[in-house]
Formats: sequence, C-alpha cells, structure tokens
Amino acid sequence: MRNIKLTLEYDGTEFHGFQRQPRLRTVQGVLEERFSRALREPIKVVGAGRTDAGVHAVGQVVNFRTTRPVPVERVADVLNAALPPDVKVQACEEVGESFHARRCARSRIYRYTVIEWATPSPIAGRYALLVPDRLSVERMSQAAERLLGRHDFRAFQASGSETATTERTLLRLDCRRSGDRIAITAEADSFLYRMVRLIVSGLLVVGRSELDPEALATALRTGERPPTRRGPAAACGLCLAHVQYDDDGAGCGLRPPAVIYDPTK
Amino acid sequence: MRNIKLTLEYDGTEFHGFQRQPRLRTVQGVLEERFSRALREPIKVVGAGRTDAGVHAVGQVVNFRTTRPVPVERVADVLNAALPPDVKVQACEEVGESFHARRCARSRIYRYTVIEWATPSPIAGRYALLVPDRLSVERMSQAAERLLGRHDFRAFQASGSETATTERTLLRLDCRRSGDRIAITAEADSFLYRMVRLIVSGLLVVGRSELDPEALATALRTGERPPTRRGPAAACGLCLAHVQYDDDGAGCGLRPPAVIYDPTK
Repeated sequence: MRNIKLTLEYDGTEFHGFQRQPRLRTVQGVLEERFSRALREPIKVVGAGRTDAGVHAVGQVVNFRTTRPVPVERVADVLNAALPPDVKVQACEEVGESFHARRCARSRIYRYTVIEWATPSPIAGRYALLVPDRLSVERMSQAAERLLGRHDFRAFQASGSETATTERTLLRLDCRRSGDRIAITAEADSFLYRMVRLIVSGLLVVGRSELDPEALATALRTGERPPTRRGPAAACGLCLAHVQYDDDGAGCGLRPPAVIYDPTK
Repeated sequence: MRNIKLTLEYDGTEFHGFQRQPRLRTVQGVLEERFSRALREPIKVVGAGRTDAGVHAVGQVVNFRTTRPVPVERVADVLNAALPPDVKVQACEEVGESFHARRCARSRIYRYTVIEWATPSPIAGRYALLVPDRLSVERMSQAAERLLGRHDFRAFQASGSETATTERTLLRLDCRRSGDRIAITAEADSFLYRMVRLIVSGLLVVGRSELDPEALATALRTGERPPTRRGPAAACGLCLAHVQYDDDGAGCGLRPPAVIYDPTK
C-alpha cells in the first residue's frame, strides 16, 4: 500500500472546518469524496491540524493510502482536477509506511492576521480580522512572551473538546506590525480546541490596553479564562501556515512530540 | 434631493459584474435592492466603472439620490448593515446636484495582479492570475510604454460593446515586480469593453517572450488584435482601484473628460 503525503491550501470560508461531519461540507469530507472518485477506490484522509469552521490553511498536511500506481509526480494534478476551487494540493510526495500526518507532526504553526481598519472590507476582511482600534504591539509582545514554554493551557481552551492532557508547549508566539497589519504567529507541539483564537483574543484586549500584559500569564497560572469578556478571535483571521516534521516527511516513528523551545525562531 | 457619493469595495467572485441584469446577481442590482429597502424609497445607483463578472473593486465610486434625512456620517453604517459581506461602503460624502459618478470621472485606475506560481492557489488565486512562467517585466514595460497617450484602442476591445468612439487616452500603464508578484496598473480617461484585460493578456505574451514588445504598438496602429491567440486575461486578477475626479468630488460640470498625460505618475 502506498502512503501519500500532501500539502494543501484552502480557503476556509465555505467549509465547516477540517473534520468530516455528516451532511456538512468539510475539508476532510470533500477530500475523501473527490479522491475516492478520482482514484476509484475508497480513500481515507488523515490531517495534521483540525482547523475550525472558517479557518484557512496554506500549509495543512494530510496523508492517505492508495493501491493506485499513479506516478507520484502526477498525483497533485490528478487530485487537483477533482477538487473544487477552494481547496488545492500544493505539494505531494510518497512517504514511508509509518508516516501519519497528525501523529508524526512535531509542531503546527498558525498565523493570525489583524488589520487596523475601521470599515468592513470584503477583500482584506476575508483573510483577516479588522479592528477599529490602534493596537500596541509592544504590550501584546510582552504578554505573548510570558506564555512561552510548557504549561497547562486549560485557560485557553474552549469547552466541547476532549483531550487527555491540557499541557502543551508553546514554542513561539510573536506579534509583528507591518503598516496597519499585525501578524501573530503561534507555534506549538499541538494546540487545544480554539487555543490560538483564545490567545489572540487575549492579546488583542492587552493591545487595546484594556488588560495588563501580565493578565494572560495570570490566567495560565490560575487556569481561569482571562477577564476579557470576549470569545475567541474570529475564525477568518486564522490560517494554518505550516506543519513541522522531524525529517523531510519521508516517515517517522510514532512517539510523543519532542519538547523543543528555541526563542530565536 | 440629496446626492450621495459612495466609495465601494467588493469581491467580484460571486457577482455577474457591476451592471444590473435581470435574474443575475450584480453589484448594481444588490445595491439598489438593499439601499431601497434600507431607505424605504426606490434608489437608483450610478457607477463610475462597469466592472465585468468576477472583477473586484477597492475604489468603485457610485452616487444616488435620496430624500431621506439620514445624517451623512451615519449613511455608510446604515447601508453597510443592509449589504451582504462581499460588497461594503468604504467612504461616503454628500455632493452637489451635478455630481454624476460616471460622467464626472476624469479617469479610472485598474490594478491587475499576476503571481508566478505553478500550482492552483485557492487564497492567492482569488485576487490574482497565477502563471507557471517566469515573466520579463522589462519586456512588458517596453511594450506598455508604447501604448501610452491618445489612440484608437479598437484592437484591444472585445466584441459585444457599443461605443461612439474607440479613442481613449491611456494615462499610465506600468508593470512592477515584487518577488513573484507583478502588479500592472492602468489608468485611462475611460476604458473600452475588456480593454484592460486584453492589454494585460498581450503584455503577458510579451513577458513570456512569445511576442515582440513592438507587437502591441503594431496592433494599435493596424487596429487588429495582437496575434496572441489568447482571450482577455482572467477576471479574478483585475481590480478597480480608484476613480479620479477633478475636485474632491463635491460636484462637477458635465463635460468631456480632460486629456491629461503625466508620464511621471
């Protein structure tokens, strides 16, 4: 059985998230349906990140098994011909038996985009959160820095998720301004349900000076949601940018993700 | 009767162009329907540029007349609340009786975006044309320069349009590279039907070195389409960026558009 690894880009606007759900249009559902039809055998897809409804991806990674002898350099074209315009294969490689897109991932990198723009913008607002405020990236960065490392992140988890442990390692969380655009990059071994958007929501409240930069670290310590009275930041601003694997993806053993923290990254 | 000028942004993907057509979703149709409902009187909208199906806008200008006493600073909010997410008002002002968004416009500026990217991209490809080739911006700029000024542009007009004259003044046509992204900016007093996309199509063929930079100027002279064997460049790459008026838009006389050519612009 061949094992194929794909890197995908999708516009999440018209998807009810990655994970297959009955009667809803999801990325996994569309991939499995279209791949099964294109390859004329039932295809099951494993994804590295379970992006929520409305969340985009430029570097989602999936793998699937197939018996079909399509040359690997033709697989992307065959699958793209079968896919709708809002999800497409960017790269494809044949990997070892043991490669599993979710379990082998060492870390996920998400990018959240905020634009300081007071009026609704159909174009810029499709892939960003528009805010009418001027944000202090300095305050946001101070707050972000204190969240780095291995912690119990249950204060930044939405209800409705089940997970064995709420400990995660936040490897990177930085906020960069470019004009009226602020990019927040978050990397962790894995993320809890809505963790990125809850952290971003907290950072925005800090950036608006409604909360002290220390408040997010306090939330982490107490395990209680920071007192922002706001839900997770809007899905449209979030994008799964990249999934890291230990080697170049040719295969990996099934082991717990490495705990690596490199503040220079 | 009050005369209101609006600057609009829209994502053209789901519109059959600007101009109202029976039973099709058009920008003008949506504006008139939603504005009439919001203001509770029949509203007719005049647009500066008749963008085609799939063409976007960040600086479309329209005007409409109303008897309603909504304070001008509240008009954008009232109309935006009534509009769907893919078209929104960016700016609003009350203008003189004689202001007419189309007839008073001195020039239109369109921006066409090309990205050198070999695989289909749902996100980048929504607002750009993706090409697998490496283009020569130098060749494209050489070809572009020779089209500037007042000419008969019938070689760059799609059939199906009716216009008194095919003479137009191309005020600006420049090609700029930034990484793998090429922005083509075109400004003219007004454009013939599909003129921007036919010019861009010619420039791309020149940029791929399949045609001499001189070929577009030859087409202009002979009035025959350049021998590219290609149709107009895809609509998704085109965006109506800005509409210029003589003064700040407070009103204008009804006169033929000024012929101004400033090569430094």
